[in-house]
Amino acid sequence: IWTQPPSMAMIEPHLEQLKREETDSKPLWGVPFAIKDNIDVADMLTTAACPTFAYTAAQHAGVVELLIANGAIPIGKTNLDQFATGLVGMRSPYGETHNAWRSDLISGGSSSGSAVAVAMGLVPFALGTDTAGSGRVPAALNGVVGYKPPIGAWSTAGVVPACKSLDCVSVFTRSLHDAQLIDHLLRNQPLSFAHIGPTEVLVPREPLDWFGPYASDFQRAWERSIDAVAAQGFVVREIELAPFHEATAMLYDGPWVAERWASLGDFVTCHADDIWPVTKEILRSGQNALASDAFRAIHRLEELRRWVRDVVTEHTVLLMPTVGGTYSRDAVREDPIAKNRDLGRYTHHCNLLDLAAIAVPAGQVKDGIPFGVTLFVPAERFEVLVFAASSMLSINMTDDCCYGRGDKVLVAVCG
Amino acid sequence: IWTQPPSMAMIEPHLEQLKREETDSKPLWGVPFAIKDNIDVADMLTTAACPTFAYTAAQHAGVVELLIANGAIPIGKTNLDQFATGLVGMRSPYGETHNAWRSDLISGGSSSGSAVAVAMGLVPFALGTDTAGSGRVPAALNGVVGYKPPIGAWSTAGVVPACKSLDCVSVFTRSLHDAQLIDHLLRNQPLSFAHIGPTEVLVPREPLDWFGPYASDFQRAWERSIDAVAAQGFVVREIELAPFHEATAMLYDGPWVAERWASLGDFVTCHADDIWPVTKEILRSGQNALASDAFRAIHRLEELRRWVRDVVTEHTVLLMPTVGGTYSRDAVREDPIAKNRDLGRYTHHCNLLDLAAIAVPAGQVKDGIPFGVTLFVPAERFEVLVFAASSMLSINMTDDCCYGRGDKVLVAVCG
Repeated sequence: IWTQPPSMAMIEPHLEQLKREETDSKPLWGVPFAIKDNIDVADMLTTAACPTFAYTAAQHAGVVELLIANGAIPIGKTNLDQFATGLVGMRSPYGETHNAWRSDLISGGSSSGSAVAVAMGLVPFALGTDTAGSGRVPAALNGVVGYKPPIGAWSTAGVVPACKSLDCVSVFTRSLHDAQLIDHLLRNQPLSFAHIGPTEVLVPREPLDWFGPYASDFQRAWERSIDAVAAQGFVVREIELAPFHEATAMLYDGPWVAERWASLGDFVTCHADDIWPVTKEILRSGQNALASDAFRAIHRLEELRRWVRDVVTEHTVLLMPTVGGTYSRDAVREDPIAKNRDLGRYTHHCNLLDLAAIAVPAGQVKDGIPFGVTLFVPAERFEVLVFAASSMLSINMTDDCCYGRGDKVLVAVCG
Repeated sequence: IWTQPPSMAMIEPHLEQLKREETDSKPLWGVPFAIKDNIDVADMLTTAACPTFAYTAAQHAGVVELLIANGAIPIGKTNLDQFATGLVGMRSPYGETHNAWRSDLISGGSSSGSAVAVAMGLVPFALGTDTAGSGRVPAALNGVVGYKPPIGAWSTAGVVPACKSLDCVSVFTRSLHDAQLIDHLLRNQPLSFAHIGPTEVLVPREPLDWFGPYASDFQRAWERSIDAVAAQGFVVREIELAPFHEATAMLYDGPWVAERWASLGDFVTCHADDIWPVTKEILRSGQNALASDAFRAIHRLEELRRWVRDVVTEHTVLLMPTVGGTYSRDAVREDPIAKNRDLGRYTHHCNLLDLAAIAVPAGQVKDGIPFGVTLFVPAERFEVLVFAASSMLSINMTDDCCYGRGDKVLVAVCG
């Protein structure tokens, strides 16, 4: 889970500071949180799961700064797929992150440690990042909420870039309410309450790809979810998946790998032996991509962004399974790239199409394996997400989202 | 001037249509206008100054449609630097466009025909396009107003792309008022009147580059312009030019040439012999640019865009000479690329930095050669431009901007 586990040396200064504050002056007074280790915490290493890359951060990342200012206590840095490249939670010299419920299965990634830390009740919330699903896939596989704000809504200052134009900081929580609270605190604009509740839910028309040892169970869980949404009175309408798949293909098979190379290429070239082999293979695939192809893709993406806004209109929300299955860690080790791709099938398109998303637990697949769905809306309508998740899936806002312990973990550690 | 000159066959249907309309129902009832020949007019050829490229447009470009709906009459298509690539007005198989005032000098480009048509009083306004200065350089050299709205403010549907992410339609007029009226009609949003008039003018700190046979006269005209602005009570403050030059360098020496190649490369490859040699050389230079370099430049540009917004704040407007000199057509023919680059020194940065701009006449250089300055503000503050130009340079809004004839050319041609 951790690259740098909690220590009193790290926590103590914050406790000292909080002693001087009124408990009700800070909405997060005393709430511990974990930070994915590609996000800067002052005076700690930022490793991005690559020890050679590690540097000591001079100051907090923008989001960490804001959370501390609101009374929260950073307690440790969490493991990730190296350079936030991956959705499996296994591409790290700090070890494979185990699933919170079934340790033979993958945890998902790249924000693996943060999701598992929340799922296991070690912290009530944890920061991740989400470029292509890193904030949603591990939420689904560990049965917690994963909220990914619109691109640009939360500061990315002090975050190691993956695809800089797509990177978002994200948050894992156990309840919708907590996700909403964090969003409120990390957003620059004040929260507006002009929610227009959706009345219609868009779901994929084409048969979905289910994979892994529980493929048919995932499919049944998805069908139950649609039934549950329809039972809440929402109109369920089908839309074509082709434009989402087209955007997805741009990410790793198209020019956006070159954006990772733009930020990390020099480091990879100088320290080739220190990069996780699979990660190196992926990053290098962006090395020779042509700028003209990138611009052509950017132009096409503009069309797709307009399309999605024409389709996911004011009264609708888009619903997909967060992942179409899971794998054992053994299976992923044997075939890391193709299995990873399967996991991104319903998450990769999100930032490319400029959507906001929330991944929420939605019952069980089987044998205690959590199932999850994701709600998407165009970035500018992010505010309906929590409300929609709550009303569509009849989740009590302050519930632990179908899972978890009866009591919340909002424990204030008083020195 | 023309690639397809005015003909009664073209004009007649519009006259028939207008007969059925009340004159006061349409703000542009009967006003003739010219269209740069990279913008579609239904049933006419769009050549982009490349006969092999030409196609018959099935429908009007978005902007043309709107102008006709407001009563204006399209009367002809104007010459341009091929594929809107150039600032000289000489890169066209339809001939070199002569300057409206001194036919030995260049007209400027790429919207050469449109600017000259307005300067010579053939039409009261004409559409151009502006990716890197094409709507401002010929305005300055021919003594008319050239207004370039923010990227995305006017529709670019039905316009042959140059750098698709930067392309704007622009307009040439003889008065600020006319530019404002066209802006009002072509913008999707209604005009807001919450102008905050600027009180401070930012001018370059570094010595500027003056060039061509009238270099020192251009310099003196610029100094007179600054004095005139100061005399109007504006605070004149100096800023560094380096960030503007950095953006400028990205355009033709950097990855954005690859964006031209993205749109035109296939055509250039298939019809190499039909492309203007200089244009071909420029376009081909984008062929092998790397996507990772493009993304790196996009990231850097984001920083520069933030910088310019920090500097050109609410009460300020940025002022530069539109061009730092002019050349004879003979001189440009001998050294087309370097001379062209000189002309773009103070215009290239504009769209890359997401600015809106208006080029206005500002007295004479010498011997009847017009001088011009450009006002820039960040895109979102475009509405102050006309007001600022009017108050800073004490131009009467409905004046013919220092030049031109006493009577306006708003002649309605009634069948």
